[in-house]
Amino acid sequence: MPEIHADRRDDLRGLLGDADAALVTRLVNVRYLTGFTGSNGALLVTRDHEVLATDGRYIEQSKRQSPDVERAIVGAPATALAERAKTDGVARLAFESHDVTVDLLEALAKVGPQLSKLGRAVESLRAVKDDEEIALLREACAVADRAFTRLLPSLRPGRTEREVGRELEALMLEEGGDGPSFETIVASGPNSAVPHHRPTDRVLEAGEFLKLDFGSLYQGYHSDMTRTVVLGQAADWQREVYDLVARAQAAGRAALGIGASCGDVDKAARDVIVEAGHGDDYTHSLGHGVGLEIHEAPTLRIGATDTLADRTPVTVEPGVYLAGRGGVRIEDTLVVRESGPELLTTTTKDLLEL
Amino acid sequence: MPEIHADRRDDLRGLLGDADAALVTRLVNVRYLTGFTGSNGALLVTRDHEVLATDGRYIEQSKRQSPDVERAIVGAPATALAERAKTDGVARLAFESHDVTVDLLEALAKVGPQLSKLGRAVESLRAVKDDEEIALLREACAVADRAFTRLLPSLRPGRTEREVGRELEALMLEEGGDGPSFETIVASGPNSAVPHHRPTDRVLEAGEFLKLDFGSLYQGYHSDMTRTVVLGQAADWQREVYDLVARAQAAGRAALGIGASCGDVDKAARDVIVEAGHGDDYTHSLGHGVGLEIHEAPTLRIGATDTLADRTPVTVEPGVYLAGRGGVRIEDTLVVRESGPELLTTTTKDLLEL
Repeated sequence: MPEIHADRRDDLRGLLGDADAALVTRLVNVRYLTGFTGSNGALLVTRDHEVLATDGRYIEQSKRQSPDVERAIVGAPATALAERAKTDGVARLAFESHDVTVDLLEALAKVGPQLSKLGRAVESLRAVKDDEEIALLREACAVADRAFTRLLPSLRPGRTEREVGRELEALMLEEGGDGPSFETIVASGPNSAVPHHRPTDRVLEAGEFLKLDFGSLYQGYHSDMTRTVVLGQAADWQREVYDLVARAQAAGRAALGIGASCGDVDKAARDVIVEAGHGDDYTHSLGHGVGLEIHEAPTLRIGATDTLADRTPVTVEPGVYLAGRGGVRIEDTLVVRESGPELLTTTTKDLLEL
Repeated sequence: MPEIHADRRDDLRGLLGDADAALVTRLVNVRYLTGFTGSNGALLVTRDHEVLATDGRYIEQSKRQSPDVERAIVGAPATALAERAKTDGVARLAFESHDVTVDLLEALAKVGPQLSKLGRAVESLRAVKDDEEIALLREACAVADRAFTRLLPSLRPGRTEREVGRELEALMLEEGGDGPSFETIVASGPNSAVPHHRPTDRVLEAGEFLKLDFGSLYQGYHSDMTRTVVLGQAADWQREVYDLVARAQAAGRAALGIGASCGDVDKAARDVIVEAGHGDDYTHSLGHGVGLEIHEAPTLRIGATDTLADRTPVTVEPGVYLAGRGGVRIEDTLVVRESGPELLTTTTKDLLEL
C-alpha cells in the first residue's frame, strides 16, 4: 500500500499549480494519500517531502498505517503543519477552502506562509479508482448482496420497518461488513414514496411496496444499493411503475462509458421516465460516485458536463414516487470500464413478489 | 417536542449579543434547535422568527420533524438564509465560524448582511441536558450494558477481536440500539495498551487483558462505556493495574459535582495514577460530555477552568497503558446532579476473570 499512497501524492503534486505545497485537512483525503484513518490529522505535501501530523492518541496507529511519511505528534495538526511549511521555506501553501473553517483559516494565516486555494484536487483524483480500491468496493457490494439475499425470507407483513432495518444491518455485519455505509432506508407502503425515509415502527402490510436502500462499509469503502419488492402479488399499477423504473435504470446503465458526460447519462434514464409522463415524480439525480465516501465525485445530474473516466464507480438509481401511494427506486453500483460497465451489485432487478 | 425546541431557540436568542440573528449551520446544532435530522440544512434564528432551510429530499421529513418553524426548500440552505436575513432587515448576522468553511463564508458575504461570530453558543447550551435528553442517554447506556452482559459468555480464547466487535455491535442492535455510537474498540493482550485500537484479526489468548470501549446510538443520543476483563485468572500485575485504574476512576466520579472545575475533576483521578508512579502511562484526558455527539462540551482535562452544571452528562475514563504488555481503561457515563452524580452505566466495575 505505501507505493499506492506515494503515487497518489505524486499525482497531487501535479495539481499544485503555482503553490509549493498542499495542506490537506479533509480527513478522508488524508486517508487517501497516506492510509491513516485516525479521527484527527492533517498532511503537508511539499514538492519533495510529506509530513503527517496527528495527536498523541495515534502515535502507534500512524506509524503502522503510514510508515513511509514523516510523522509529527502535535496538539493542532493543521496549524502545526502551516508553521512547519513556513520553516521549511514554502512560499505559497495551497489549502482546502471547502474544508478549512473560518476559525482555522485565521489560525493558519497567523503562523503559515502565503495561502492559496487548492480546490477539490484530491477529490478529483479520488474519482478514478485503482484496482485495490475496486476490489474493496466489489466486496462491500457483495456483503450487501449476500445480506439482502438472507433477509428476503423475513420480509413479510407484521414486521416493522425498524425491525427489518436492524436485521439487515446485523446480517451485513455477519457477512463481513464493517457497519452500514449510511443510514439504512426501509420504507413500506406510502413511505416508499418518500425518497429518503428513515425506518419507523410502521408495520408492513400485504400488497405494499417495500423499498430498501442500504450498503455496507468494507475497509473504508462504501457500497450502495436499492431494491423495491412487493409483499405479496403486485397490483397492475405497481408493476407498471416498477417496469418503468427498471427500464430507466437499464437505460442509465447502458449510457455509462468512458467519455460520456454525466449530464447525458442522467438524461438517458430521465428521458424514459419523462416520456412516460412521470418526470415530476422523479425528484433527484441519477447517481453519484462512491468510494471512501458514500457520495463523492462525479455526480450524474441534469446538465453536468464533466465526463466519465475509466475505473470510475458510480451508482445508477432512478426512482418514481407517487405521493400517498408508493414509490420505486432501483439502484446498482457499477464501475465504468473500457470493456463496458462492470456491475458490482449482483442481486436480481426482476420484481420480487414475496 | 416542539416546545422544547422553541425553548432552546429562545435560549440562543439570549446569546446573540449585538447580532440581530444567528445562522446555525452545524447540522447537530440545527437538530438540537429544531428536531430536524436531515443531512443538509441550516437554520436562521432572528429575534422573533425562525426559518429552517433544506433541500427537496427533505420536504416531508422537515414538515414532520419541525412543524413549528417556517421551512424553505432550496438548493443551498445557508446561502439562501443569509439572503433571506438581508431581505428581512437583519443588520448583523452571527455565524458559526467553527463550522462555516472559507468557501461558504465567501458565498454568505456576497448575499448576506454584515457577519459576526456566534462562537460555540449552541454547543454551550447543549452541554446541559433536559430531562428528555437524559432519558434517551439513559436508554442508550442501558442498551450497551445489556449487550455487554449478553456478550460475556462468548469472550473466550480463540475468537478474534473483529469477531467480538461484530457480535457486540449486533447485540446492541438487537437490544434496541440504532447503531454503534463510534468505532467499537476491541483490544486484546498487548493491543490493550493502545488507547484507541481498532479490532483486528488477532486471536484472543488466555490470560490476557481484553479491553472493550463501545456505545450505542439511541434516537440520536450516544452512550460510551469501557470495560477491561481478563480471559482466565488475572496475574498479580494485571490485578494491580486494574485496581489502580478502578481507584482513579472512583476518585474521578466522586469529584463530579455542580460547580466543580473540569480541571479539578481530571486531577482527582490523575493524582491517584501519578502517585502510583504511572503518570506517564496515562496519556489522555479523564472524560468528556456526551449527547447528540460522542464528544461534546465539557472536557474533563488538565487545567480546564470551566465548571460543571446541573444535568451535565460526562464520561469518566482514566486508563493505564503499559506498552507491549497491556492496558486497562474503565469508563462510565454519569450525569452531574444536585443529589450527586447519576450513574448511567450499570455494568459492574469489579475485575471480571472470564
